[in-house]
Amino acid sequence: MTTEAEPHSPHRYHWVVTLSCTDGPGIVHAVSGAIVASRGNITESQQFASDDTGRFFMRVQVESTAGRDEFEAALAPVVERWGMELHLDEVGRPLRTLVLASTAGHCVNDLLFRHHAGQLPIEVPLVLSNHGTLRDLVDFYGVPFESAPVTSPETKAEFERRILAAVDEHDIELVVLARYMQILSPELCEALAGRCINIHHSFLPGFKGANPYRQAHARGVKLIGATAHFVTSDLDEGPIIEQNVVRVDHSRSVAELVAIGQDEESRTLSQAVKWFAERRVLLDGQRTVIFR
Amino acid sequence: MTTEAEPHSPHRYHWVVTLSCTDGPGIVHAVSGAIVASRGNITESQQFASDDTGRFFMRVQVESTAGRDEFEAALAPVVERWGMELHLDEVGRPLRTLVLASTAGHCVNDLLFRHHAGQLPIEVPLVLSNHGTLRDLVDFYGVPFESAPVTSPETKAEFERRILAAVDEHDIELVVLARYMQILSPELCEALAGRCINIHHSFLPGFKGANPYRQAHARGVKLIGATAHFVTSDLDEGPIIEQNVVRVDHSRSVAELVAIGQDEESRTLSQAVKWFAERRVLLDGQRTVIFR
Amino acid sequence: MTTEAEPHSPHRYHWVVTLSCTDGPGIVHAVSGAIVASRGNITESQQFASDDTGRFFMRVQVESTAGRDEFEAALAPVVERWGMELHLDEVGRPLRTLVLASTAGHCVNDLLFRHHAGQLPIEVPLVLSNHGTLRDLVDFYGVPFESAPVTSPETKAEFERRILAAVDEHDIELVVLARYMQILSPELCEALAGRCINIHHSFLPGFKGANPYRQAHARGVKLIGATAHFVTSDLDEGPIIEQNVVRVDHSRSVAELVAIGQDEESRTLSQAVKWFAERRVLLDGQRTVIFR
Amino acid sequence: MTTEAEPHSPHRYHWVVTLSCTDGPGIVHAVSGAIVASRGNITESQQFASDDTGRFFMRVQVESTAGRDEFEAALAPVVERWGMELHLDEVGRPLRTLVLASTAGHCVNDLLFRHHAGQLPIEVPLVLSNHGTLRDLVDFYGVPFESAPVTSPETKAEFERRILAAVDEHDIELVVLARYMQILSPELCEALAGRCINIHHSFLPGFKGANPYRQAHARGVKLIGATAHFVTSDLDEGPIIEQNVVRVDHSRSVAELVAIGQDEESRTLSQAVKWFAERRVLLDGQRTVIFR
Repeated sequence: MTTEAEPHSPHRYHWVVTLSCTDGPGIVHAVSGAIVASRGNITESQQFASDDTGRFFMRVQVESTAGRDEFEAALAPVVERWGMELHLDEVGRPLRTLVLASTAGHCVNDLLFRHHAGQLPIEVPLVLSNHGTLRDLVDFYGVPFESAPVTSPETKAEFERRILAAVDEHDIELVVLARYMQILSPELCEALAGRCINIHHSFLPGFKGANPYRQAHARGVKLIGATAHFVTSDLDEGPIIEQNVVRVDHSRSVAELVAIGQDEESRTLSQAVKWFAERRVLLDGQRTVIFR
Repeated sequence: MTTEAEPHSPHRYHWVVTLSCTDGPGIVHAVSGAIVASRGNITESQQFASDDTGRFFMRVQVESTAGRDEFEAALAPVVERWGMELHLDEVGRPLRTLVLASTAGHCVNDLLFRHHAGQLPIEVPLVLSNHGTLRDLVDFYGVPFESAPVTSPETKAEFERRILAAVDEHDIELVVLARYMQILSPELCEALAGRCINIHHSFLPGFKGANPYRQAHARGVKLIGATAHFVTSDLDEGPIIEQNVVRVDHSRSVAELVAIGQDEESRTLSQAVKWFAERRVLLDGQRTVIFR
Repeated sequence: MTTEAEPHSPHRYHWVVTLSCTDGPGIVHAVSGAIVASRGNITESQQFASDDTGRFFMRVQVESTAGRDEFEAALAPVVERWGMELHLDEVGRPLRTLVLASTAGHCVNDLLFRHHAGQLPIEVPLVLSNHGTLRDLVDFYGVPFESAPVTSPETKAEFERRILAAVDEHDIELVVLARYMQILSPELCEALAGRCINIHHSFLPGFKGANPYRQAHARGVKLIGATAHFVTSDLDEGPIIEQNVVRVDHSRSVAELVAIGQDEESRTLSQAVKWFAERRVLLDGQRTVIFR
Repeated sequence: MTTEAEPHSPHRYHWVVTLSCTDGPGIVHAVSGAIVASRGNITESQQFASDDTGRFFMRVQVESTAGRDEFEAALAPVVERWGMELHLDEVGRPLRTLVLASTAGHCVNDLLFRHHAGQLPIEVPLVLSNHGTLRDLVDFYGVPFESAPVTSPETKAEFERRILAAVDEHDIELVVLARYMQILSPELCEALAGRCINIHHSFLPGFKGANPYRQAHARGVKLIGATAHFVTSDLDEGPIIEQNVVRVDHSRSVAELVAIGQDEESRTLSQAVKWFAERRVLLDGQRTVIFR
């Protein structure tokens, strides 16, 4: 993708630009001007002005013969003029993703199968787990797997250091908690802020804490669900990325609710990871902007 | 429906029997024996044994030439033997229903339109409201309408006495809170226990209390919903009858969430009322059994 | 909305621009340039480039102190340069809508109730029907109602002339077939092309023609649905605007499928009308672009 | 499960009985009488009387100390009296299932992962494919895999003989076409009648034949879906077991529709297989009765 363009068939890049700034008139015109100046053609564009925070958000895909340096140079005055946070990337570049897991395999299987099938633009240099249960599954997909027990404050601290080391080593862009059943320390939450996604096995803000399916059964709810959200130190309260529900009835036991819910967990988490990897997820205070 | 059968073309009744008792072997055989003895044919039958409470629940529709007295006589020993709570009714008999409302008309309109269209087996002798807003709408459907302001403890107590008087006067079997925006007193909750349905404009246990759509917006949820539940003195905590959700995204304002949610409220409440009127809703402790 | 702006508090217009043209680089920049030149602020913007037809589509909402003449003047060179079809309107202006009906009232009730509740940006100067059944319902909402029987080729032709006369007389922008049970003549389809929406009581392309619920029952489908589509002379084949389905099971009779399906018909048609009235529906050959 | 019961702790069997016969009064009483006579307790029971065919269907789960011989003896007079088709099995016994596949792995992965996770009561002695693509995936789950090319009438006939041989050899009770992309011969359809399930990558009867996602794109549908159905010689017309849909919009390419649809295919097929394996799927002419 980054090879030198030949004279007679210039390489066409496919860029994805995401940006946010304080809202005001003229932003779109300024950005599109930089795109035109870079001989770009817009293939997809979405924008949103938040009434809550006064921020403007934009995601635009651009085909162009301009390389990164040229495109960045064209965008630079716009970024400066509007005080933008802007990110430039190539469409489809696999996001370096660290997966954390425990014993349940359904989310890990769903992520790795989709990745394997070419449906998730990620690369997974490592799956880390506090149990060895999923080694064979992860091995099958050719992904390195490491496990270490977390049974005490000391082993927990050690495991978290291992996470941070892996993030550094592999230049990780996204950490996915694929039913990782340990609560992250506030320090780790802070270190991974905005790049760590959890799947919660409930329709938040429905049932928080432990055993949400047991709570759902006791309450007799008619729909159960799953929520993918950013991890913050405020447990189960991070910005929501995606939610799904499925209908159940009185005849379902807690065990059946668990089994039924796992489908929603898998697809909800994979969907959130896909959108994040495609740079469709932006943060707007405690809310997310999803450019589907 | 209750006229004497002629010799050559005996009237065929269509009965619906609902019952519950402590679970044990032989119940179905005993009930079906009474049905056979009454020359009945089962047209619909559902049952459920609750692991939580050890109760057995059954709903059965029976076509028979046996009238009420004969059928009850056949069932009597079964009821006694098993200590059953049993209810016998005719399929399709309209349930006497009192509707309480305030200013929002979407639920009242949905109920009355469906009733008018023959889709809801209820009769509505009265709509009571703490505002006059919906008088024209209710008038159009030919339903009596009364309103009185609720602006103080005294007027509230008076309004609740009016509710109870209407329940007595019309022999009301179901009270529907169709976006009635007053909290019922514990005494009234008690008096209407098991026969009063509320629509809550949120996916319970999601957002309780006031302004759930504002809470949903602030939290950035991706699905909003509505919950029909029995009224108990424990606010928003009564047994759930039906729930529905609809997908929303970051771009929706609170006002739009309200408008979107009203559809779910209307259909969720009408669905719950329909099932209740068809005797498909049974109470199992804090949960409901819905024989759809 | 169109009064002269006063010197010290200039009127702020809220414009909605929809456009389509052959795709190419620079369109967004050109359009946003005209907006900037008109002191406009973009409050909502969506665009789509169709791979099928090579057309580019855009819908943009703009707040500006520029009135219609000034804004059109700013856009004129862009329209000419790109050979655009462009439509400029004020956000929220009620669309002049003619409703055609027969005997079934659920869709008409849903449209008129939502309109009455301020949820549908339409005005309805007339409901025309080939039966008198719905007169009282339509009267209640204060909408003029006319009916005439369609029982022969002659009465059908006469009725269609009445439709066209009403379209002229009221400068109708949208004709809604709210379960109008007559097939429009090819001439009428042609005359109303792109501004006539029908609700089909099936999940197209599932069951076409008469009695789709009977077909659905015979086939034992597990989901039934409704489809709102543009009317073309190719029966049930016009571009699809919106579809919804609902789950059913083997125990449902044809009559129950009909009742269940009516909910989907009502909300699907009202949704399509709402999007059309908000200028969110654009035609791309045999497909629609929906800027939700 | 079938060991001799000890005197002091008699083995408790968990039976599932499915039956159908011409409808008439007294069936439930007769069946429940046989259950009582066998010291059985009903843990789940569903029934349905088909107006279309006049058939009565029942599925009942029974806990009892009676073994197969005793229970069958108790049921025998009922079966004879009513001319029943009756099947007696143990709840949870894994169904012997043959999986046919081609190159697409999503359905096979979903089936094998769920089976592996204990969520599908099946055993899979063999996966047969006309391509070698999925060997590694199937190997990982420890399931035997065989492949042979189907490129001519001769190789096709040979492959079908291999299928029938495998059915015999492993006493197969269910054949699952998990995106097996060959049309079965009428003879094979006949031989597997009532025990062969296909997943069709469309919401039938929507788009039949090849490339349904391309058809869906061209038609601009707003929902795409998948249908699990029994295989008959009438292509894509066999009785429907389960259907699901998912919302899409104009911006989706055919390739994206394919990817989105695969999720629905996987879960729809797995759901149908689960219900079949639990003996919840009964045939009623061209329709299915699903006792969920």
